[in-house]
Amino acid sequence: MSLMLAEIAEQPAVLEKTIHAESGKLKKIGKVLREKDIDLIVLVARGSSDNAAFFGRYLLEITTGIPVSLSAPSVYTLYKSKLRLNRALVIGVSQSGEGADINQVLESAKKSGAFTLGITNCADSTMAKIADETLLIHAGRENSVAATKTYTGQMLHFYLLASILADTKLEYEKIPEFTDQALNLKSQVEEIVQRYVFMENCVVVGRGLNYGNSYELALKLMETCYVVAERFSSADFFHGPLAIIERRFPVVMIAPHGVTRQSNIDLLKRLKELHADSFSITNDEEIARLSSRSLLMPTEIDEFLSPIPFIVPAQLFAALLAEAKGLDADAPRSLSKITTTI
Amino acid sequence: MSLMLAEIAEQPAVLEKTIHAESGKLKKIGKVLREKDIDLIVLVARGSSDNAAFFGRYLLEITTGIPVSLSAPSVYTLYKSKLRLNRALVIGVSQSGEGADINQVLESAKKSGAFTLGITNCADSTMAKIADETLLIHAGRENSVAATKTYTGQMLHFYLLASILADTKLEYEKIPEFTDQALNLKSQVEEIVQRYVFMENCVVVGRGLNYGNSYELALKLMETCYVVAERFSSADFFHGPLAIIERRFPVVMIAPHGVTRQSNIDLLKRLKELHADSFSITNDEEIARLSSRSLLMPTEIDEFLSPIPFIVPAQLFAALLAEAKGLDADAPRSLSKITTTI
Repeated sequence: MSLMLAEIAEQPAVLEKTIHAESGKLKKIGKVLREKDIDLIVLVARGSSDNAAFFGRYLLEITTGIPVSLSAPSVYTLYKSKLRLNRALVIGVSQSGEGADINQVLESAKKSGAFTLGITNCADSTMAKIADETLLIHAGRENSVAATKTYTGQMLHFYLLASILADTKLEYEKIPEFTDQALNLKSQVEEIVQRYVFMENCVVVGRGLNYGNSYELALKLMETCYVVAERFSSADFFHGPLAIIERRFPVVMIAPHGVTRQSNIDLLKRLKELHADSFSITNDEEIARLSSRSLLMPTEIDEFLSPIPFIVPAQLFAALLAEAKGLDADAPRSLSKITTTI
Repeated sequence: MSLMLAEIAEQPAVLEKTIHAESGKLKKIGKVLREKDIDLIVLVARGSSDNAAFFGRYLLEITTGIPVSLSAPSVYTLYKSKLRLNRALVIGVSQSGEGADINQVLESAKKSGAFTLGITNCADSTMAKIADETLLIHAGRENSVAATKTYTGQMLHFYLLASILADTKLEYEKIPEFTDQALNLKSQVEEIVQRYVFMENCVVVGRGLNYGNSYELALKLMETCYVVAERFSSADFFHGPLAIIERRFPVVMIAPHGVTRQSNIDLLKRLKELHADSFSITNDEEIARLSSRSLLMPTEIDEFLSPIPFIVPAQLFAALLAEAKGLDADAPRSLSKITTTI
């Protein structure tokens, strides 16, 4: 078994441990943020961490009403701009905590008066030293180049933060169990990947809270399967990208039952007319019925809590497709685990 | 000649006319915004307009220091959230002014106390009626499905806005002339597309002020050439996507001389090691030397003013490649000009 598959399986335990170990810090952080009267949240990340931040953006705006901006690091690092961030919460997200540009943005934000928070897997990292407060993912060492358990660990921290900032109970304690249920789909995923062994291109679609997941699955497919995987929201897809769809072009959809349902159904109907191939990870009967292939998730998972459990079969899909293609998911060509860009 | 090629050629005149006709409004808008003491700018758009907004984000943050957020429309339209926007400037960008979700975000923002601005090509559009103020693109009717003259017209408006918000002279009056010079490269582009007639996938790379352009060229290649075109910043590329690169995989780069130079050079060197194919639109000798093919832009174009003139050869590339592939750039399969999504 690949390291990647082993680490995918660790996720329920990592999530459980992270909730247990980190919830205590939140009251203190919540108090500081309320005193500061935060009116903007800025998220800073790259790679998989950026996809987790992309999810965090939706979750935080929806639950707290505070506008969120996904930072463009080069504005700080290359263009040397000083942004007005005196009432901002700036959150760096990095598995290793050693992304040089991410840390540079945090330092610049601190100087501009922002409150800074690090979300990282490494307690003694540079990020943990720079940030005013740190939320740790308790994932242990991540050995696979393709991030899985730290990605969902980062997502979890956005639920913890949202619950403090919105001052409501978000039921994120259910997520480890839902994630465990998702792992049960492994043998079904093993069968489904056979259909995609010769796939060279695809489009991954998600929307709203699951839009970040479409970026993450696309990245996993690029890293481990060398598939040229585009990612779009089902809304943006109609603004141009639809033109690349031809007969049997594969579209993968992460589409739970919920408010994004109609938009995903509209897209699936259009894809059917175009004779495209669609594979959906869903817990909605109609979406499954309209798809060429589907993987059924438990119906009890509400859309609001779906992003973490729904990425699990997607991670399995990438890891098992790599295997079926005869590739080594643990050793993607040309990549290294820690990337430092300025 | 396709409508798309004809409209590409109109750009210097459209830009000139837009500067002339709209500059007068800016003093008034500037006064309102200063009175309101804006501390956040939110941009709302889809498709090509979203790519123009992506450029606007960099330009506005770099010149004004005001944080910018690219809006996620579904937060408003599907999740029905009310964001705290009482000190925000919210800018809708839409060629037709009829994007239903964009307009819904503007209405919601207005209710939250934001000052709203529309950037559109249609003076009597719904957007122009909703927004507190409107900046018009004077492009005349855009007949091609693939947006070109309205895309650069939208970009231009961000220069006009930035000059008012930052209260500095930005020399955007030079842009129409630079854009005219860029059109002179047409015969060179005609030769270069021959090399890419059978290209089915590619990656488009840009960074900073030209990052939005990489999204725009990728979209044009999808719409008009049915090429599966990924888009990345040269920084993000090292975080995973590099794995898809194999011998002769084509990478197109929009890379002016300037602060993003080193990062683009680092990527080109890595691509050379991997025997990838690189085609760069540049005015930097070293970048041209490291690329498999390049298109040389005038050296007098400063990076700060490069995004509009540098997209012109990219538009020509897409339009002429479509022709060389035997496709009709004016009639992309499955698309229509106005897209209304919720």
